[in-house]
Order: sequence, then C-alpha cells, then structure tokens
Amino acid sequence: LPADAAMRAAPDFLATGAVVIDLSAAFRLLDPQVYARWYKEEHVSAQLLPEAVYGLVEHERERIRTARLIANPGCYPTSALLPLLPFVKAGVLESGPVIVDSKSGVSGMGRKVAPESTFMEINENFRAYGVGTHRHTPEIAQELAKQAGNDVPLVFTPHLLPLTRGILSTIYIRTALDVGACNSLLADAYRDEPFVLAGDGVLPETAKVSGTNLCHCSAFPTNAPGTVVLISAIDNLVKGAAGQAVQNLNTRFGFPETAALV
Amino acid sequence: LPADAAMRAAPDFLATGAVVIDLSAAFRLLDPQVYARWYKEEHVSAQLLPEAVYGLVEHERERIRTARLIANPGCYPTSALLPLLPFVKAGVLESGPVIVDSKSGVSGMGRKVAPESTFMEINENFRAYGVGTHRHTPEIAQELAKQAGNDVPLVFTPHLLPLTRGILSTIYIRTALDVGACNSLLADAYRDEPFVLAGDGVLPETAKVSGTNLCHCSAFPTNAPGTVVLISAIDNLVKGAAGQAVQNLNTRFGFPETAALV
Amino acid sequence: LPADAAMRAAPDFLATGAVVIDLSAAFRLLDPQVYARWYKEEHVSAQLLPEAVYGLVEHERERIRTARLIANPGCYPTSALLPLLPFVKAGVLESGPVIVDSKSGVSGMGRKVAPESTFMEINENFRAYGVGTHRHTPEIAQELAKQAGNDVPLVFTPHLLPLTRGILSTIYIRTALDVGACNSLLADAYRDEPFVLAGDGVLPETAKVSGTNLCHCSAFPTNAPGTVVLISAIDNLVKGAAGQAVQNLNTRFGFPETAALV
Amino acid sequence: LPADAAMRAAPDFLATGAVVIDLSAAFRLLDPQVYARWYKEEHVSAQLLPEAVYGLVEHERERIRTARLIANPGCYPTSALLPLLPFVKAGVLESGPVIVDSKSGVSGMGRKVAPESTFMEINENFRAYGVGTHRHTPEIAQELAKQAGNDVPLVFTPHLLPLTRGILSTIYIRTALDVGACNSLLADAYRDEPFVLAGDGVLPETAKVSGTNLCHCSAFPTNAPGTVVLISAIDNLVKGAAGQAVQNLNTRFGFPETAALV
Repeated sequence: LPADAAMRAAPDFLATGAVVIDLSAAFRLLDPQVYARWYKEEHVSAQLLPEAVYGLVEHERERIRTARLIANPGCYPTSALLPLLPFVKAGVLESGPVIVDSKSGVSGMGRKVAPESTFMEINENFRAYGVGTHRHTPEIAQELAKQAGNDVPLVFTPHLLPLTRGILSTIYIRTALDVGACNSLLADAYRDEPFVLAGDGVLPETAKVSGTNLCHCSAFPTNAPGTVVLISAIDNLVKGAAGQAVQNLNTRFGFPETAALV
Repeated sequence: LPADAAMRAAPDFLATGAVVIDLSAAFRLLDPQVYARWYKEEHVSAQLLPEAVYGLVEHERERIRTARLIANPGCYPTSALLPLLPFVKAGVLESGPVIVDSKSGVSGMGRKVAPESTFMEINENFRAYGVGTHRHTPEIAQELAKQAGNDVPLVFTPHLLPLTRGILSTIYIRTALDVGACNSLLADAYRDEPFVLAGDGVLPETAKVSGTNLCHCSAFPTNAPGTVVLISAIDNLVKGAAGQAVQNLNTRFGFPETAALV
Repeated sequence: LPADAAMRAAPDFLATGAVVIDLSAAFRLLDPQVYARWYKEEHVSAQLLPEAVYGLVEHERERIRTARLIANPGCYPTSALLPLLPFVKAGVLESGPVIVDSKSGVSGMGRKVAPESTFMEINENFRAYGVGTHRHTPEIAQELAKQAGNDVPLVFTPHLLPLTRGILSTIYIRTALDVGACNSLLADAYRDEPFVLAGDGVLPETAKVSGTNLCHCSAFPTNAPGTVVLISAIDNLVKGAAGQAVQNLNTRFGFPETAALV
Repeated sequence: LPADAAMRAAPDFLATGAVVIDLSAAFRLLDPQVYARWYKEEHVSAQLLPEAVYGLVEHERERIRTARLIANPGCYPTSALLPLLPFVKAGVLESGPVIVDSKSGVSGMGRKVAPESTFMEINENFRAYGVGTHRHTPEIAQELAKQAGNDVPLVFTPHLLPLTRGILSTIYIRTALDVGACNSLLADAYRDEPFVLAGDGVLPETAKVSGTNLCHCSAFPTNAPGTVVLISAIDNLVKGAAGQAVQNLNTRFGFPETAALV
C-alpha cells in the first residue's frame, strides 16, 4: 500500500485487533504537520501517530515487542541510521551537518512505468534526484533528533544507480574520535546483532549484501582532520523493506529474530 | 604513458624543442615531496616542476598559451575543480572541509585486467574505493590552495559505477550564499566558456555529457543552512582525459579552442 | 514518423517536388496486401509502392540515384540482408529455410514508455519476442525473393539484449560451399563498399561497430556438413537507421557516399 | 575441480566407497577419443567411462539411483537437451540439422580474470564465441544420438550476454508436428517433473528462472513450414550447475528430489 492508502486503512485493521506492520511511510513521521509538508496531504489518522513505533529493530527492539502499530523504516533511512545512531547516542558528533550521500538501485522506484524508469534513461547513466526534497530527509532527521535529544542538521542526497538492487550510503560526520575509535564504537553497538556487520574496516559493497537482511557498515579515514566517513550497504528490497518487516514481525511475536531471514 | 614513464621521458622530448602535454600525473603536483608520498617513488625530473602548467584551460588559459610543459588534469580533479574554483576565487567558502563524493565509470581504471575489473565483480555492484588514499586527493587540494591562497581541508571519496563512461561528483560546501547566488556565481564564471555549462539549476547526468568535452555543473539547496550541494558531470574519457588534452593543444598553438572537439 | 503517418504524408511531400527518404516501414513492402496483413491497416498510398526503392545502398545503388521515394531499410533486415544477399545472388543456397536469429539492444524499441521497456524488466534479463510475428519478417523475405527470383523460406527470431545499441544476427544457411569460399564470396561482394567489412573470419561484436555506419559480417564453420553460420553486427541507430538514411541521401544527391558518416 | 583434475581425482574418491557427482566435464563424454579431441588431453580414467551416468535427472533418473559416478551435465547441454529430448524420443524430428543458438550470462565463464572477462569488454557488447568449437557440442550430440539411436546433425553457437546469470537457448527443429502438438509433447513429457515447466506457449525469460532450479521451455511457430522454434531458459548457476548437482544427490540417495532446491 502507498502511504496515503495505508494511512486510511490502518485504523480498520487495528480495530480488528490485528497488529499492523506498515511498509509505507504513513506512520514513520511522528508530527502530522511534518507529514503534511513532505507528503503534500493532511494525515487523516494522526491520532495513531503517538503510538506508532519506528521499526528499526536494532534501536527499538523493546518498544516493538508490545507495539500495535509498527512503521517499517524507509530504505534510505535504514542505510543512514544504522551507521549514524551509535555516534548520536554516544554524543560524539561535533557541530556541523551530517552529510548522507546515498546511491540506490532502480528497484527503489518500485515498478513505476515512466520515462525516467525506462532502460534507455537509466542504463549507462548516473544522476542525483530529489536533491533537498526527498521525503526520507525528515525521517532520517527525526530519528537522529530523537536519539540526540536535539536537532541534528542533515544533508541528504539520493542518486540513482544503473543496477537493480542495493543502497550504498557514504556519510560524512564531524567527530573528535579517530577511525579506530569509530570502528570500535560501531562494533560494540552491533556486536550481538544478527543483521548488522559493523566496524570491520572493510569497504562495504552492495553485491556482498544482495539478497540478505544484512547491513554492512564501517568507518574510514579522510584527509580532513575531524571528519570521518561512514559507509553502509544494504539490499533495499530486504533490510530496506520486506526483510526488515519480517524482522519486525519476528520481534513482535516472539519468533527467533532471524526466522525465515537466513 | 604512466606517470613514472612520463616523468622519465619528458626531459628528452623537451630537449628536442617539443611542447609536452602530459596526460599522466607526472607533472601535476608541484611539490616533489608530495609526489613521492602519494606515488611511492622519488620524482626524477623535479627540476621541471616549477615550469609545469596545470592544464585546466578555463583557469590557466594565459599560462598555457606559452607553456613548454602542460600537465593535463586528472579526471576526478576536473570534475571537482570546475564547480569549486569559482567559489574559492570569490572567497565565499566558509571554514570547514570541502567534501567531494565522486562516482566514476569503469573506464577510469583503463583496460586493467584484474579480479576487480571483471564484469562479475562490477555488474550489479557499487562500492567506494581508495577512501582517504586516492592519488587525486593532493591534486585537488593543491589547486584549491593555489587559488585560495591557503590550504582548504578536503575530503575526497571515489566510487565505482557499473557503467563504462562518466564521472558525477557531488560536492558539499559551506557558504553564506544562497543557491541562487551560487548559480549566478557559476554562470558568470563560465559564461564565455565553450565547454562548461554551469549554474542552470538542472541536475547533471553522466549520459547527457557522454562523448562530449562538456562539464555540466550546478548548485542545489540542502536542508542544512549554510551548506550547498554542487553537482558536476563529465565524460572521464573526454573532458577528463583526451578531450581536455586536445583543448590544451588548441590553446597552446592558437587553434580555435573547440577545434576537433565539437 | 511511424509507418501509418509516413504513408499518409509522403504524397504531399512528393507533390512539392521533394525527394522522400522514409525511415518508417511505409514503403518497404511492395505488395499492399502484405503490408495490410503485417501492419494491420490498409495501405492508403499504395499507388506509390511501384516506384519506391528499397534503400539498401550496397544492393540498390543505381536505382537510388534517380529515385523519388526511398524506403530506408529496417534495422533487422539490414543486419540480415547484407550477409545473405551475396549468397542469394550467387545462387549457392541449398533448399531449406534460412534461419535468422537476431539480438537487438533496447534502442530498437525507441523511447517507448511501457512495462516492458523499464529498466527493471530488461536489466539482467534476456528473452525473445515477436517470435513468428515480427514485422521485419516479410521485409527480409521480400528482398531475398527479389534477388533469388523465387521465395526463400525464412525463419526470423528477434531477441532483446540488456544494452542500449547494437544488433547481432546469427544466420544459418545451407550451402555446398565451405567456409573459406563463403568468406571469399562475402569479401568479393563488398570489397569496394565503404560501410561493409565482410569475410575476414573475425567474430563480429556489437561494440566494435557502435557509433559507426559499418556492418561487419563473416562466415564461420559448423559441425553439421552443409550448414554455415553467418554473423553480422551493426549499430541499429546508425547503419540500422539514421546513418543509412544519410548514406541514401548522399547517394541520391551525388555527395560522397561517406559524407558526414566517417 | 576442472575436468583434468576431476579425471585424476575420481578413482581415489571412488576407491573409498564414495559416490562421485562430478560437476566437471571429465565423465560426460563416453568415448575417450572424443574427449581427447575436444579437451586436448588423453583421458587418464577412461576405464570409468562405461559406468558414468549422465546426470540429467529427468531422462536418467533410474540409472542415477544406483550410480557410483554421476556426470553432472554442462549448462548449455542442459538448456538444449531438456527441450530437445522429448522430440528425439518420440521420433518426430525430420532430417536436417538441429540448430541450437544459445546465449549465456558471464558467470558461465566462472571467475576467470582475462581481457575478455573485464567489464570494459562485456558491458554494452554482444558477441558469439567458440563458434564450431565449443566443448559442449559433442556432449549435446552424444545425448541426442543416445536417445535417437543414430547421429543427429547438430549446430551449436554460444554467445555472451552482458548480464551475470542465465542461459536462453533458441532451438530450430524440423518436424511435421504443428506448434500445438509440439507443446503437447513437451507438456506430456514433463508433466510430473518438479523442475521443468514446459509447453505452455509463454516466452521464456532468463530473469523468470533466475535463482531457481527450473527450466522453462516451450515451442513457437515460424514462417517456414516444417520448422518449429523451441526456446528454453535456465539459471546456469543452478539448473545448469550446482542446483542440478543437488538434484542428482537427492535422487541418488533417496531424498525428496526437491530437497534444498525450493
């Protein structure tokens, strides 16, 4: 269901006693005014937003276990938040914007039939899109702010890759930590997580996680003191969508978290 | 010729009275110690470095007209410097690192035969490489510093696209200018240039400049006040290599600058 | 113009005294009933068909020089007829069907926006289409029959390649000639042709002729006595369309045949 | 193991009492002289050839159940034999060569590092290779002859697709059957087979069987009376290699044939 349909359908599903795990963006943004501004439509089920739980299992596991309404994260936000949140939670980001430069395969568009989704336009081409306007921007910003306790300035630039599946995000942060400390922070944060491989210093590649529910992320040095690069790779159709929804389902109903996912 | 061979061959060519337009990196870095550090070899023709002219025609046209030794710019530096230099020259960059997130087609590797250049490794895959270590980093930094009059902190991250030709660079700058002013600055800087299409607010795409000597670049807004995105696209095999060399040749010998290029 | 529009527009153009070089299929089939059967529409300008000249320059050069109406060949027929016609003219085909197994890049569809033209459907996929029903079938058959003096049974199977430009046709013929004799026949037929490289025994590749008006074709041995394989490669957008139209224009108006094409 | 290594290793494995399912070509050709001619090496374990069973489960199931040495079929032969064998067994092929025009993804080369396996050579390119000389030719011919009771003239032409996985074979046969009868024959032959979807008249596509152990094949009409086209699609890495090996293992040891494969 697209966000506008899911927003309308969720109350009826919940009324039956069902738990709703929503793959659309309908219940990801907690503030209905932010929703209205980015999705160009009033939120008709705003009364449900206070109880909606953002389904990034690695950071919301306890709340998910008892949630009625779970908002499965967007694909880009998943790729950005998994590497970023440990730094936000540890309070080690210096002032200055977090820059998320993301590149996605074409399946991120779904099966849309339009001039910009034709093979002729995408093959042997590369471009950015939605610069400064992509709807995943407020979703990433909201989750950073939630964990930071204050707004984190965010720049998010999505690009379209000439391949079918995968998202790679290259993220620039300001921190006094050196790369080794950054990777230790990542490794510690995700040591017990079955679906996050973090802090190993190996360059992530989209093909390496294709078809899996894994996020691979690590920190790398730059030539500018105080700036570190984080790179993450996911399969947008699995960890960025249906796989993460199954992970939420497993978490919510007490199944092994990896059931049907490995 | 690779840099090590060009470095050795140039003196003999010059001794014959020839003008040398070098496509390698041998004479791009003015400081032989910087060369030695990044290219892992002593520079054996360091005596020529003071007279080598960096062949970015749009910014060095007058010096090129009388040069004996012209160092044709690297492909990534071309894509980064054309959008950045007008801001550096105008003195409108605020403190903080310039971030250059670049994505290149496979022809940037040349015809190298290695596991990482096989179709199996590149098709349906995307990854960064040379993070913090790519040799084009000091070249970009040198030209920024030359025009700025001081060092400009630089982060440069190259990535490998699953396509044959093209580079797209997404560049994050700190400036008090709004996007309109940024685009005016770009448009004014390149108004009379035959090979730079700048400041039009249209998203550059690699396919749109493929097979041409054009650089298309423009500024775009972000959601972080004080940060602007610049995006540039070139064909790495033309404006990023052989085409720019012809442009240098035309400039040096007084031919029309666009001869054989349009 | 598509065939139905070109069919309607041509008489008015001709009435002005203009020469018409038509890139559509409107005037390629000499028999209006064959046209009606394959294009599902009556031919409204059937009176022009007797004077239309099939614009395969290598085989119709003299008639083209004085034609009022030139039907530029289809892309697949160009790739099939150039290798086949020397064998037909020499009368060396044995009985049995000629089999043309063709593979085309996506630009053969034009810029159609439809589910089957999306990147998601074409990338990492390969399939045949229009098996037994493709409209280029009667065009190939007509030209074979014209040169043979009798019908030549024909099987034509087009396939869709996940790339932008190029057609490769693999053609199976029955002949008593050995491969060496086949290649001599091809080489002799096209020795003085600027746009056909034939009979060299080198495997044609679409990338080798991309962006050119060339057809590369050659004969190869099989393990079945009496069967020879012919393989041809063209760029469907040049020799298969606009380039061949320019070649027709050059021929018709007495310009050097290669003008604007090399 | 490559064929030369497998040929040497198999006797030792068998001596331990193990069953050998060999993915190489070492035991596919029953005649050691044919092996020597096509593989350019004497067969050093020719004494094992009489007991080797060709592991095309759909046609050798009973012999596989008790075999000590199973030769897993090649990828191209699998794609050719599954559609062809029902016609051979039914005795409905007319005289004249069977033509197999096959197109394979790059993974058919394995992870070979060579100029012809680089992205630069394969992307946006299409070509035939091994025309008249590919080693799968005698393997296909042998199995056709075995079921026909006599030699069947065969033409086999492999091509290289710019994609990772999948083989599509377009096969031209001479038969008095019409297409409907051909599809009935295919459907009847494979009605109870879990891994062959046959005779439905739907055009096979490589992407539709990607990642599965399925072969999809069907018959289609041509414009040449007496000639029918068969088209098959498999994933060369599954039904064409490892998946079929598991199917052989399941069959040999009495596991459900689809275990670990669906």
